[in-house]
Parts: sequence; structure tokens; C-alpha cells
Amino acid sequence: MHKGRLEAFSDGVLAIIITIMVLEIKVPHGHDFAALKPLLPVVLSYILSFVYVGIYWNNHHMMLTSINRISGNVLWANLHLLFWLSLIPFVTGWMGENEFAPATLALYGFVLLMNALAYFVLQRQIIAADGPDSVLAHALGKDLKGKLSPLLYCLGIAASFVNSWVAGAFYVFVALIWLVPDRRIARMLKAGEQH
Amino acid sequence: MHKGRLEAFSDGVLAIIITIMVLEIKVPHGHDFAALKPLLPVVLSYILSFVYVGIYWNNHHMMLTSINRISGNVLWANLHLLFWLSLIPFVTGWMGENEFAPATLALYGFVLLMNALAYFVLQRQIIAADGPDSVLAHALGKDLKGKLSPLLYCLGIAASFVNSWVAGAFYVFVALIWLVPDRRIARMLKAGEQH
Amino acid sequence: MHKGRLEAFSDGVLAIIITIMVLEIKVPHGHDFAALKPLLPVVLSYILSFVYVGIYWNNHHMMLTSINRISGNVLWANLHLLFWLSLIPFVTGWMGENEFAPATLALYGFVLLMNALAYFVLQRQIIAADGPDSVLAHALGKDLKGKLSPLLYCLGIAASFVNSWVAGAFYVFVALIWLVPDRRIARMLKAGEQH
Amino acid sequence: MHKGRLEAFSDGVLAIIITIMVLEIKVPHGHDFAALKPLLPVVLSYILSFVYVGIYWNNHHMMLTSINRISGNVLWANLHLLFWLSLIPFVTGWMGENEFAPATLALYGFVLLMNALAYFVLQRQIIAADGPDSVLAHALGKDLKGKLSPLLYCLGIAASFVNSWVAGAFYVFVALIWLVPDRRIARMLKAGEQH
Repeated sequence: MHKGRLEAFSDGVLAIIITIMVLEIKVPHGHDFAALKPLLPVVLSYILSFVYVGIYWNNHHMMLTSINRISGNVLWANLHLLFWLSLIPFVTGWMGENEFAPATLALYGFVLLMNALAYFVLQRQIIAADGPDSVLAHALGKDLKGKLSPLLYCLGIAASFVNSWVAGAFYVFVALIWLVPDRRIARMLKAGEQH
Repeated sequence: MHKGRLEAFSDGVLAIIITIMVLEIKVPHGHDFAALKPLLPVVLSYILSFVYVGIYWNNHHMMLTSINRISGNVLWANLHLLFWLSLIPFVTGWMGENEFAPATLALYGFVLLMNALAYFVLQRQIIAADGPDSVLAHALGKDLKGKLSPLLYCLGIAASFVNSWVAGAFYVFVALIWLVPDRRIARMLKAGEQH
Repeated sequence: MHKGRLEAFSDGVLAIIITIMVLEIKVPHGHDFAALKPLLPVVLSYILSFVYVGIYWNNHHMMLTSINRISGNVLWANLHLLFWLSLIPFVTGWMGENEFAPATLALYGFVLLMNALAYFVLQRQIIAADGPDSVLAHALGKDLKGKLSPLLYCLGIAASFVNSWVAGAFYVFVALIWLVPDRRIARMLKAGEQH
Repeated sequence: MHKGRLEAFSDGVLAIIITIMVLEIKVPHGHDFAALKPLLPVVLSYILSFVYVGIYWNNHHMMLTSINRISGNVLWANLHLLFWLSLIPFVTGWMGENEFAPATLALYGFVLLMNALAYFVLQRQIIAADGPDSVLAHALGKDLKGKLSPLLYCLGIAASFVNSWVAGAFYVFVALIWLVPDRRIARMLKAGEQH
């Protein structure tokens, strides 16, 4: 089974997700700069979610570059990830329009958490399909970032009900630790180019 | 005639269909969890339709992997299938917003039925274009699932006017029997790799 | 200059155009079949426009299959065609929501006319880029359908102000004569496979 | 790292951006030509933005054709450009619906300016990844158009608060100087085909 269409379909869905989020930034009725002010939380939410979807696209790209074989389970694990990613525009809009109210921050964190878990499941399925000598398996190693993120999301969810700024800081922090592209895979791929 | 652009165009349309459905989950005005409660039927409808579009993408993918030649008829049979798939967001939205009212459940089943028939027609056209020794033709065999599904959709449509839960159960059941990827084609492809 | 990204970008835009049209079919507030009745003109408009965009995709596909070289002019002629195609969802929605009122039918015909002219310009640019021995140039021959269509659109626009049914009939008729895929190119391509 | 998926993802996002802008042209309630008149500024804004996104797609296409290697930095510089491009539908809608009010014209110019800067950053990252003998680096030379555009956008932003026509003229003028495809790269590519 070729990975070409899996990549094409995922690229399509991710491109649409990242773009329809902008539709939540509704054109205001006023025509001066003051009319833009209420949009600030919506725009901030959009930026954070744009970065998250960008991170997922980037890592998805790297992960699939490193593999050769996919299976039926990989197809479904990928669709499962796309499902949770597809909910990002909704939770982003809800959070932005309600100026980071506790429940909206918590739901945002929950969807991020589910995305992280879905990504983890996809990773496992890819490694299983690719065989025990999978470049990906070696590249991941202990996968510290992958294990730390869900924990940080949980802390963010809990913090949502105490202090919006702290919750937001957790979500921004996870984005920052992932913004660094996954050099582990890049390094392993380079090392593995002995053919 | 190459199948590349047919796959690319279908991937594009399917990616958009699966993603714009999420736009039906309108951001609620309230900012607490109670505001999410009325969204439950909309979200459940979204999940079911997401799974259906995922199944179609999966099977479409498998079916086209197994063939070599396409014809003008295949292009149009494919567009016909995409037409019925494109109505899924509409019927999903109508069903979800009206909490599975009888008419909305019946129309949902009708669109699923038309999709099944359009898929069947596409299959026939592909086999006709691919020649009598088509791997696909052998792989399908008696195509039990393909013949059973329309029947189950009809039962679901009839049940819509009697009991919403029974109708819903029919639609969920068909999704479940298709969630298993089409191992028949995979098996035949593997067996056919003698060149 | 490779045609790959031109095809990919056009596929993307066409896939979105054909799919966002369905967003004009707004989910009705009622939950019985009677609530669907006012949607009939919207759905009929959608079907006609779906077929038109499908025809453009099909012919665009065939036309680009037959060529090897593209130029900067081809890129812009293609974007010009995509511009007019992108207006189809708007005129479809306006026509459907106003139950085929004269002005809406005339504007629909005007956009179809501009699409036909843009397609003609693209064809000329492709032939110019591909050289005098272009397969496409031979395949087109007198291009009867291509010359007849603008005339029929003009008649449809004129008829819009007299009788809606006659205008609609013109637009449906043009779609029907194009539904037949462009066998001329297919034939020439087959004949040209002497390498 | 292959550039294939970077191109595919960018094509997807650009195709969606160029198409969802048309959703800002809301179907009017009236059914005669007079109902279209208030849409004129929206349509004019749409045309200008369509041309701008088209220019970015064209130049992006040319730039990536000329390179072989990409890096993690290129991926993020590309996402950064896509972010600013994704704001074009919003500023286009705001400007069109408010008939080119000063603040809307200035914000439109600001987003164009940020796009130009993001494109410049992407260019630098690509040259850095591609090595000092990069065809792109030679092709760009002094990059007069690239350096002139931000200046003209700044003049347009300043003019927004004085005279709408002058501001608009600046934005149209920059589009016109870029409409000419980047012949420098084409020329260099041709000259460089000595392998």
C-alpha cells in the first residue's frame, strides 16, 4: 500500500483546517481600527491554533518521510488523528469569542490532548506496519516530548478553572517545545543514508 | 488516461467534504459546558458522517490502487459519486440540528443509499474499463457487503418513521461492517504480485 | 516549466468550488419533508452548476494530458479561467434563492459565457506554448462545440428576460452537448502513441 | 527532505484562500441587477486579492521549481508566509464591505506588507538551504521588485488616511509590476540547463 494518497489526503484536510479557522475571524461592522479591538482574543486564538496545526503538519510530514510501508490500521489511525484535528477550528472559535473563559480553555486543552493521544496511536501503528527495524522507532527513542505534552495539557486543563493566563501559558509552552522540528528523525534519516 | 488526477481531485473533494461538515457545529453563545449540551446531536451526527466519508475514502483508495486503466465513463461515474457524497454535510446538519427527527433520519438514509448505488456504478465502470481479468473483479467476488448495505439503508429509512433509535442503529451497523478495510482486495493484490 | 503544480492547484480550486456550492443549500429550520420544498430551486441550481464544474474539470484534465510544455502565459490564462469558475457558486446561489428570476438567470449565463471565453483563451495559450505540431491543435480541429457554446449562452441570456424555462433549457442543453467527454483528444492521443 | 509535500500543502492552502474569498461576496436578497450594485466594492476587492494570491502562487511555484533542497527552517518560513496570506480574505472582506474606508485600506496594505516580508524571509531561507551556488540566488540578483514593493505598500498605507484612490492606486500598481512572471528565474533556469 502506497503512502502517496495518505499524504495527499492528509495535506488536503490539514490545509482546509488551517484555512477555515480564519473564517471564525468575522468581518466587523465598524470601519475604524476600534472595530478590530474585540477581535483580539479571536486573532490570538487563531495564531495559537495555526501554530499547532502547523506543528502537526510538520511532524506528520517528517514521520511519513521516514517510513516505507503503511497498513489498513495506519489509514484508520490517521483518520482518527484528522478527526481530532478537525475539531480545532471549533474549539478555537469558542475560546476566542468568549475571551478565554474557563470552560472554553479547558475544552481547547482537551482537544489538544486528544490530538496528542491520536498522534501517539498513529505513531505506534506506523512503527508496527514498518517493522521492528523501523527508522522511526529508533528516531523516537524515549520520545520525551511526546510523553511530556499530554501531561502539560492536563495541567493546562486543570489550570483553566483557576487562572486563564496560566492555562494559556501551558498551551503556548507545549507549542514552543514542538516548534523545534523533530531533529531526531532528520538525524537518523541522514545517518541511515548508507545506500 | 492516467488515474493520477482522478485520485487527486477525489482526495480534494473528500478532504473538503469531511472538513466543512465541522462548520455545521456552530460556536455556541454561552461560555460554560452547559452551552455545549445542545450540540450533542450535532456532534454525534458529525462523528457518524466523518466515519462514513472515511470509509468511502478508504475503499475508493483501495479500489483505485488495484486498477490500471480508467475511461471517460469512470470519470463521470466518479463525479456522480462525489455529487452524492457532497450532500452528506447538508443531511448531517439537518439531522443533527433537528435531533434525529424522522424525516431527517430518512433523508440521511436516502443519501447514504444513493452513495452506495453510485459507488456500485463506479465499481462496474472501473471493472469494464480495466478488462475482464481485472484484479478488482476477482477481489469483489460476490460482494456481499456491497449488496447488503443498500438493503440495510432501506430498512433504516423505513425504521426512521417508527423509531429513531432503530434507524440510527441500522446506519451505525452498516458503518461498522465497512470499518473493516476491504481485505479482499488487499489479499488479491498480494496474491497478484507475481510480476 | 512542469505542468504538475498547475494541475494540482487547478484540481484544488475546482474541488473547493464544486464543494462550497453545497454550503448555499442552507439547513432549513423545519424538520419535516415540507421544509425541504423551498430548497428545490437551490438544489436544481446546484445540480446544474455541479455538472458544469465537472465538465470543466473533465475537459481541463483532457486538455492538459495532451500537452507537454506550459508557459507563464498559460499560468495566467489558467488563473483567469479559475477566477470566472470561482464566481459560479455566487451566481448559483443568487439564482437558486430567487427561484430563477430573470436578472439572476442572465447573470448565471454571463458567468458561463465568460468561463467559455476564458477556456478558449487558455486553449489558445496552451497551443501557442506547445508548438505548431501540438496534439491539442489537431485534436480540436474546427472546435464546433467550443464555438457554438458562447452563442447558445448569449441566446440563453437574451431568453432570461422573456421566459425562464427557455433560458434554463439553453443552459441545460449546452451542458448536455459537453457531457460527452472530448473524444477528439482521446482519439488523437491514442493515434499519437507511436513511441 | 523532499519539496513535494511542501508544494502540495502550499497549493492546498493557496487554493482554499483564493476560493473562500468568494464567500465574502454574500448572495444579495434582491433579485434584480440593482441588488448587485452595493456589491461592487466587494467584487473589486475580490479581484485585487485574487490577483495578489495568484501572483504569490505563481512566484512561489517559480521559486520552488528552481531549488533542490529544503530545510526545517524553510518549512516554517513557508508556514509563516501562509499565515499572512490566510489573513487576505479577512482584510479583503473588511475593505470591500466598508467601501474602502481609510482604516480598512491601511490594514489591507499592512497585510500585503507582511506578506512581502514573509516572502522575503522565505526566499532567504531557501537560498540558505540550497547553498551558495543556488540558481535562485543568482536569478534574484538585486531583486529590485522585491525591495521596491514594501516601500510602495508603506506609501499606500500612509495614503490611506489622505485619499482612498491614491492608496488603491499604489496597491494596484504593485500588483501590475508583479503580474509579469519572474523572467529572471526562467532565464537563469534555461541558462543553467547544461547538465
